[in-house]
Amino acid sequence: MEQYDMTPRTDLAVEAREMLTRRVKEDVPGVRVETLKDEELTITRVEISTPEAERMMGKERGKYVTIESPGMRYKNALLEEKMMHAVAQEFGQIIDLPRHSTILVVGLGNWNVTPDALGPRAVKKVVVTRHLKSMISPELQDGVRAVCAISPGVLGITGMETAEIVHGIVSQVQPSLVIAIDALAAASTHRVVTTVQIANTGIHPGSGIGSKRFGLTQKSLGVPVIAVGVPTVVHASTIAMDTLDTLQKYSPFSKYFKSLQNISDVDRRTIINQVLPETLGDLMVTPKEVDRMIDDVADVVAGGINQALHPNIDYENIHMYLH
Amino acid sequence: MEQYDMTPRTDLAVEAREMLTRRVKEDVPGVRVETLKDEELTITRVEISTPEAERMMGKERGKYVTIESPGMRYKNALLEEKMMHAVAQEFGQIIDLPRHSTILVVGLGNWNVTPDALGPRAVKKVVVTRHLKSMISPELQDGVRAVCAISPGVLGITGMETAEIVHGIVSQVQPSLVIAIDALAAASTHRVVTTVQIANTGIHPGSGIGSKRFGLTQKSLGVPVIAVGVPTVVHASTIAMDTLDTLQKYSPFSKYFKSLQNISDVDRRTIINQVLPETLGDLMVTPKEVDRMIDDVADVVAGGINQALHPNIDYENIHMYLH
Amino acid sequence: MEQYDMTPRTDLAVEAREMLTRRVKEDVPGVRVETLKDEELTITRVEISTPEAERMMGKERGKYVTIESPGMRYKNALLEEKMMHAVAQEFGQIIDLPRHSTILVVGLGNWNVTPDALGPRAVKKVVVTRHLKSMISPELQDGVRAVCAISPGVLGITGMETAEIVHGIVSQVQPSLVIAIDALAAASTHRVVTTVQIANTGIHPGSGIGSKRFGLTQKSLGVPVIAVGVPTVVHASTIAMDTLDTLQKYSPFSKYFKSLQNISDVDRRTIINQVLPETLGDLMVTPKEVDRMIDDVADVVAGGINQALHPNIDYENIHMYLH
Amino acid sequence: MEQYDMTPRTDLAVEAREMLTRRVKEDVPGVRVETLKDEELTITRVEISTPEAERMMGKERGKYVTIESPGMRYKNALLEEKMMHAVAQEFGQIIDLPRHSTILVVGLGNWNVTPDALGPRAVKKVVVTRHLKSMISPELQDGVRAVCAISPGVLGITGMETAEIVHGIVSQVQPSLVIAIDALAAASTHRVVTTVQIANTGIHPGSGIGSKRFGLTQKSLGVPVIAVGVPTVVHASTIAMDTLDTLQKYSPFSKYFKSLQNISDVDRRTIINQVLPETLGDLMVTPKEVDRMIDDVADVVAGGINQALHPNIDYENIHMYLH
Repeated sequence: MEQYDMTPRTDLAVEAREMLTRRVKEDVPGVRVETLKDEELTITRVEISTPEAERMMGKERGKYVTIESPGMRYKNALLEEKMMHAVAQEFGQIIDLPRHSTILVVGLGNWNVTPDALGPRAVKKVVVTRHLKSMISPELQDGVRAVCAISPGVLGITGMETAEIVHGIVSQVQPSLVIAIDALAAASTHRVVTTVQIANTGIHPGSGIGSKRFGLTQKSLGVPVIAVGVPTVVHASTIAMDTLDTLQKYSPFSKYFKSLQNISDVDRRTIINQVLPETLGDLMVTPKEVDRMIDDVADVVAGGINQALHPNIDYENIHMYLH
Repeated sequence: MEQYDMTPRTDLAVEAREMLTRRVKEDVPGVRVETLKDEELTITRVEISTPEAERMMGKERGKYVTIESPGMRYKNALLEEKMMHAVAQEFGQIIDLPRHSTILVVGLGNWNVTPDALGPRAVKKVVVTRHLKSMISPELQDGVRAVCAISPGVLGITGMETAEIVHGIVSQVQPSLVIAIDALAAASTHRVVTTVQIANTGIHPGSGIGSKRFGLTQKSLGVPVIAVGVPTVVHASTIAMDTLDTLQKYSPFSKYFKSLQNISDVDRRTIINQVLPETLGDLMVTPKEVDRMIDDVADVVAGGINQALHPNIDYENIHMYLH
Repeated sequence: MEQYDMTPRTDLAVEAREMLTRRVKEDVPGVRVETLKDEELTITRVEISTPEAERMMGKERGKYVTIESPGMRYKNALLEEKMMHAVAQEFGQIIDLPRHSTILVVGLGNWNVTPDALGPRAVKKVVVTRHLKSMISPELQDGVRAVCAISPGVLGITGMETAEIVHGIVSQVQPSLVIAIDALAAASTHRVVTTVQIANTGIHPGSGIGSKRFGLTQKSLGVPVIAVGVPTVVHASTIAMDTLDTLQKYSPFSKYFKSLQNISDVDRRTIINQVLPETLGDLMVTPKEVDRMIDDVADVVAGGINQALHPNIDYENIHMYLH
Repeated sequence: MEQYDMTPRTDLAVEAREMLTRRVKEDVPGVRVETLKDEELTITRVEISTPEAERMMGKERGKYVTIESPGMRYKNALLEEKMMHAVAQEFGQIIDLPRHSTILVVGLGNWNVTPDALGPRAVKKVVVTRHLKSMISPELQDGVRAVCAISPGVLGITGMETAEIVHGIVSQVQPSLVIAIDALAAASTHRVVTTVQIANTGIHPGSGIGSKRFGLTQKSLGVPVIAVGVPTVVHASTIAMDTLDTLQKYSPFSKYFKSLQNISDVDRRTIINQVLPETLGDLMVTPKEVDRMIDDVADVVAGGINQALHPNIDYENIHMYLH
């Protein structure tokens, strides 16, 4: 994908599509987009259905839903609840779950690095029921799916690829669905912590904050994988590229425009390498309040998944169903 | 094992043997004991070799080594280092590790409950190398074994048996050895946090603080399992039983002795049930300073394992071996 | 208080009174007790009003309320909410808070030791508003008190007495009330994590799990101090003493009764010292599930305090009140 | 300081001086600089001695030492130890500590946000001795200063200004020195986690990651305040400004140079505001491996302080000095 090299890196299909539209200025066949909006939430459903669309978008074929709400930057319990319902509903649209299924929820990322900790923090709030099922009275079992959950850690902590650990557990537990929760990188700062993406394509190599080396997909695991992600960072190079773009595109700077419109991709890369020496490894840009924001959005993600998986149960009182 | 029901519960072979000796007052065939002692450390090697000995001891056949040092109650860097070396050495005695092996270290227990957190805390300090091996220059590879490590959590957190998770990972990573680190229960308070037990028998159902429902053994996993444990609690019932024992046995109370020597096991159980209603679940007895003590002994366990696995490497500078 | 030396140690006035009643078999003047009960909760208000009562109870003069619910051992959201309301209401009874007051909430105890972590965990859930007050529109300021909160750590962590730190902060912030949240020791296991005590006497030396060396009282700090506590442990010696008591008192053991009824206090102390050598420091007895239980009861404590302090505010949406 | 508005924000005197040199191209009177260098470390001592120099540097009068080592990006125990010694030595140069002093170490910043957690993490590793002094035998007391330490949290957590809490504690404990450890912002990415700054000027409003509203200085606290800081982030606006600078200055882009050299400060600000909308609050740029890096540099900071404060003591065995 040489030609997209200067494109800001994003894990969001909705952003990949925005960038594509800016480049090609017309609808791309094989990419279907549907948008629902009210005052607080914007839901965008992107479906990529052809190999050509896959190549142009730089994203795997499949369905991607984003639920966005700029208000998520601030503590707002009512908005969180609304967003949680939307996550539950869109989740139900993207996958048809049988009643008696076993589901494995996986929290990807490094719990020690705040912006990468979304997965582990959400997993803590997922209601785990698999070990209780045998204790639930038979007439109530219908309402409760068998949910188990783990945060496997990252390569530097365990010495094992996340994919190895998940693969091993899947072969043992044999779930009918894997849900992988991960922190993502966005291309624009305003989507950070305000957007939840649900995709039926699984997790692909190179995506997420930690830039996975292996994927977690139906192909690799043998069961469907739903990815639920929230952008928590933009790459530092995005800031540099946005600065160049702004120089070129916005009218107040038209006086510089002439010479700049011709900056070649090679020159751009040279500029960015000057600004961002690679000595520190990848640099990430994240809000100072990332800790609180991630806690809030982890509530939304875990709450939405809980609702989607056990629509008939009042979780906190699940013990009443036990005999 | 009905007949031992009133015996204080212990995960230590050295204690099981002490109790057995008190009961039978003679050497039990099939139980070999060897003791090494200096001013600071006592090393006891117990080997159980017959089915009869197994039954009488209430412990699986195999080798158990304990390294005890009462001084471990206090912060003492020199003693910690000495004990660490002893752990490394005894570890090397109990298993013969090929040079090129892959080893999986598993930290059992619940990281949220201080006395049960020994395994997870030790695993954090185990030097993980498996993901670096391919980066190490070939002439140095000989000195470095491929170590990976995970703390899988407990049933109530994940909805999965620890054994399921470990089994899945073992089938994927195919280590030639599993080391399982766990917090144990002792029968006497003075062994709490002062004793490390290394056993080549793996982890058995019912052992540890969480009372495992499934074991991690060579039979179940298909590879040798070395268990490294440290008692961090005694059961509350041990305190109650010790009180009754003291009443019966110590001479200052000989005036009560006559009537008490006949307390039946059923009566003892009744007394203990009065004292310890089961409403709160199992009660554990642990020192108030358990947090610091567990950190210190986790250093000893992890340091000993690190030394045993990579005898030729200065760990902190392992990065110098990378090209 | 030599004469009460064999009494199990308790921080609960309700237990001190039960023990006193057992000893003296009649009402003690200067101790007023009032009990409210429904199916789920028992509220007991103990008031100690004379120096003689103070001496006999081994507790400072003042008001002590306990709210008990055996159901708190299990996860039960409805019961938690009911208990939270009761805490808020009893809190309002014990102190008359002016509308515009500044309140300092202090979470005592060691966050690294699960059973001692109640204070720090509850403080995390207390809604802090003091820094927001200037941002709240004047017409709404009436409903919001200025709450600030800190967990000062313990002597071994900071090198400072908790009382020094709190005293310093009080002199700077000048609150009109201090609320001190602490983990307590009970005399009976069934009160562990099921009981909240609110007292207008502050915290006294020797109380709590860490056995404070200095108190936090109106006398020492110059402002009223409300103590909110939850027993999370019993002392190991309690188990030993209960065992002796059971032997003496319960009829199935009447055959041993004769000789035992005369065990002197000195002999009792000797027995207990045999059972509990002091080498490990104080031993505490706590449920294995202490982590979850403390989280639940910390919710109750923090939620009750939040409700009592800001009766008119929907906390999670407090940001809407900001301009 | 309107005129420096477009200068990248930095908390490091060494960077402020580099920028100043770039602007004025000659030595500034009242700023003395001394540099020591070997293969691994660069030590720079900057002294600001006049009000004019203070104004031009945008930093308070006083002494600032930086110890830099690019190798700190990688795990390297030997380099860490070397840097630790350098910190101890420079610390000893910047303040003359009486033997019997009491010292309060304060860890500033938010422990929940990895890049802001340097202070709290270092404080955990500072050896606290104040509570032990009375237990140390008199002939050994000379070698041990009375050190106490606290991480007071941030305004959003406690509802109190850090300065209020520290002021209160200082008035109670009456130390002869306060050491304030804080995470800083640098102007260049290559100084992130590789540089320790020690200054005898205290902490000033607006500095650090959290942009303090109040200072901790000799003037405000009444005792000398040594600030020890490590840059862990650059501001996102620094990346944007560096991009513009690179465009203007580096020869490969001389073709664009003509028109760009005239970008006014107002236009620069406009560009940056386009790129960095303020909706998310301040954005920080930090390495992905920030967690491990901060742990390593917190070791260096705490180790250096420990050595400087107790030159004659082997810390881990301090208990041997107790009677």
